[in-house]
Amino acid sequence: MKATFMYGAGDVRVETVPDPILKETTDAIVRVVRACVCGSDLHPYHSMPHSESGNPMGHELIGVVEEIGSAVSTLRKGDFVVAPFAFSDNTCSFCRDGFQTACIHGGWYGNPENGGLQAELARIPQADGSLVVVPGIDESSELLPSLLSLSDVYLTGYHAAHMARVEPGKTVTVIGDGAVGLSAVLAAQQLGAEQIILMGRHRSRTDLGREFGATDVVAERGAGGIAQVLELTRGEGSHIVLEAVGLMPAYEQSFGIVRPGGVISRVGVPQYEDAPIGFGSLFGKNATLTGGPAPVRAYLEAAIQQVLNGEINPGRVFDRTVTIDQVPEAYAAMDAREALKVQIAL
Amino acid sequence: MKATFMYGAGDVRVETVPDPILKETTDAIVRVVRACVCGSDLHPYHSMPHSESGNPMGHELIGVVEEIGSAVSTLRKGDFVVAPFAFSDNTCSFCRDGFQTACIHGGWYGNPENGGLQAELARIPQADGSLVVVPGIDESSELLPSLLSLSDVYLTGYHAAHMARVEPGKTVTVIGDGAVGLSAVLAAQQLGAEQIILMGRHRSRTDLGREFGATDVVAERGAGGIAQVLELTRGEGSHIVLEAVGLMPAYEQSFGIVRPGGVISRVGVPQYEDAPIGFGSLFGKNATLTGGPAPVRAYLEAAIQQVLNGEINPGRVFDRTVTIDQVPEAYAAMDAREALKVQIAL
Repeated sequence: MKATFMYGAGDVRVETVPDPILKETTDAIVRVVRACVCGSDLHPYHSMPHSESGNPMGHELIGVVEEIGSAVSTLRKGDFVVAPFAFSDNTCSFCRDGFQTACIHGGWYGNPENGGLQAELARIPQADGSLVVVPGIDESSELLPSLLSLSDVYLTGYHAAHMARVEPGKTVTVIGDGAVGLSAVLAAQQLGAEQIILMGRHRSRTDLGREFGATDVVAERGAGGIAQVLELTRGEGSHIVLEAVGLMPAYEQSFGIVRPGGVISRVGVPQYEDAPIGFGSLFGKNATLTGGPAPVRAYLEAAIQQVLNGEINPGRVFDRTVTIDQVPEAYAAMDAREALKVQIAL
Repeated sequence: MKATFMYGAGDVRVETVPDPILKETTDAIVRVVRACVCGSDLHPYHSMPHSESGNPMGHELIGVVEEIGSAVSTLRKGDFVVAPFAFSDNTCSFCRDGFQTACIHGGWYGNPENGGLQAELARIPQADGSLVVVPGIDESSELLPSLLSLSDVYLTGYHAAHMARVEPGKTVTVIGDGAVGLSAVLAAQQLGAEQIILMGRHRSRTDLGREFGATDVVAERGAGGIAQVLELTRGEGSHIVLEAVGLMPAYEQSFGIVRPGGVISRVGVPQYEDAPIGFGSLFGKNATLTGGPAPVRAYLEAAIQQVLNGEINPGRVFDRTVTIDQVPEAYAAMDAREALKVQIAL
């Protein structure tokens, strides 16, 4: 099969490798129908040291079950499935809490052990726990982009809003106009936010943000951006800040605009470890900090229904489609911000 | 009147100064019946640079209203009142949210502008918003220590538990066996926590913690303490951590023991600004960080009723009583850990 590997910063290659095989009785093999490139894939695209062996890439897919291990009981060959970006048994204590990204039998794709999902075939560990069947869908459906978005991007935005307990009457500010930020706007709108301020500078993206529900757009960053959000909130600040970037300036922006007693919810993977949380940032105004890797699995059934019912169309974040051979171009286009998010049609 | 001033580290003096007078029409003058020394008063006791003029000390009191400004409508001379450690109008947008420590007309005691409450008399700004009347109490009541504890210490512990949403079925670990930590144990018990692990090394204090509801006591700190809490929680960690210390090792302990998806709630004033919050500490396990200066005012009516009904006896944290002239000895005794918390009877 063809699969995507990264050999270092800026060096993405599609290569022919042996097809994956079942390793555990709980595995399934899925033929990939759509995969995509994630904003988080751009971090190693900027900084990965050269590797002789290359690292398999990709953690998002929808596809069709080709083969199941002997212990898999809820799936059949031919099922159309969504795979969350992390696998999980969906039965352990943490999974039952709704935090499947902390599953004791769970793990991540995009490493030599589990392979990557920007490929023609994928081995999915803990298949019963991880894969969710989409009924009545075939490969020609117009819903494929939205279903693909449930593998990570939309439900990562949703996780930010869920952890922050967005509800009617709340002002929500979303930092970042990437695909996750726009997804967070849509999720905040779905949860009934009264005012949704989108902080972003790319007009085509913030325009989609407005269609997703943003009531205000603030292009400025730093002190000027903070001042504008305060002005839009009667000087009081935003009840909720959804931080979808992961860089320190976005975090600093967050505690600058959060209202006393408010919530900052992060889903951009932090590219820092230490940050201000003392009296002058979080503590003094009783701000809450939450968020983390989205337990997509917890939200997947409900979101699939919303897509099938036409209630949400989160797949609009995909603005380009490539073949598997064109994946290196997809990385380059997203890195150059020529594309918001690129799907791979197989 | 006599009032307490700090002139530098270790240098506390009780001096005779002019009685406070009404400055604003919204002020009240209160004759202090009981005041006390706070754990947070020990921070300047360790580190305050020498001051020629001295700094007024104290932010906790119960007392009797002596005089009211012309705009005060809910209080009368002779009312027995509890004063929260911060004053607030209790009507602004943040107060209505339940975060009176962020009141736009609020502020703090223990500074030249507002004076200190370790004194015979006190000027209370925003008296209508700040002071809560205790019905049917006189100065001989045995409930005075518990009522005094509602000015700060018990309701600070309660705030930690409230912000962390302690509820039946949850495991709660309290870090710190000072008066706030023990109060947090009592609050967690009141809110129905299933298991309450108290981390502290002072036997007389942890014994009171057990009486307040702690089911387990862990004396060890650092990696050993973390291992013990994990063992007590089937290796899963604590749903909720209430951090009542404010020093970095206590925070590091917190993210070491919190369960994935769990909550760390801080009420010990952080003696640091930057701290770990990235993938390796909070983000990776979707831990939530919350807490801040307790909006005591939000919880005061309900807690007064609990004290009057005999449901709670949080005043047990006071293990010594001094006169106003003995306040310097109170600081020394708390600093030497000879006393847990000292009340001043006037």
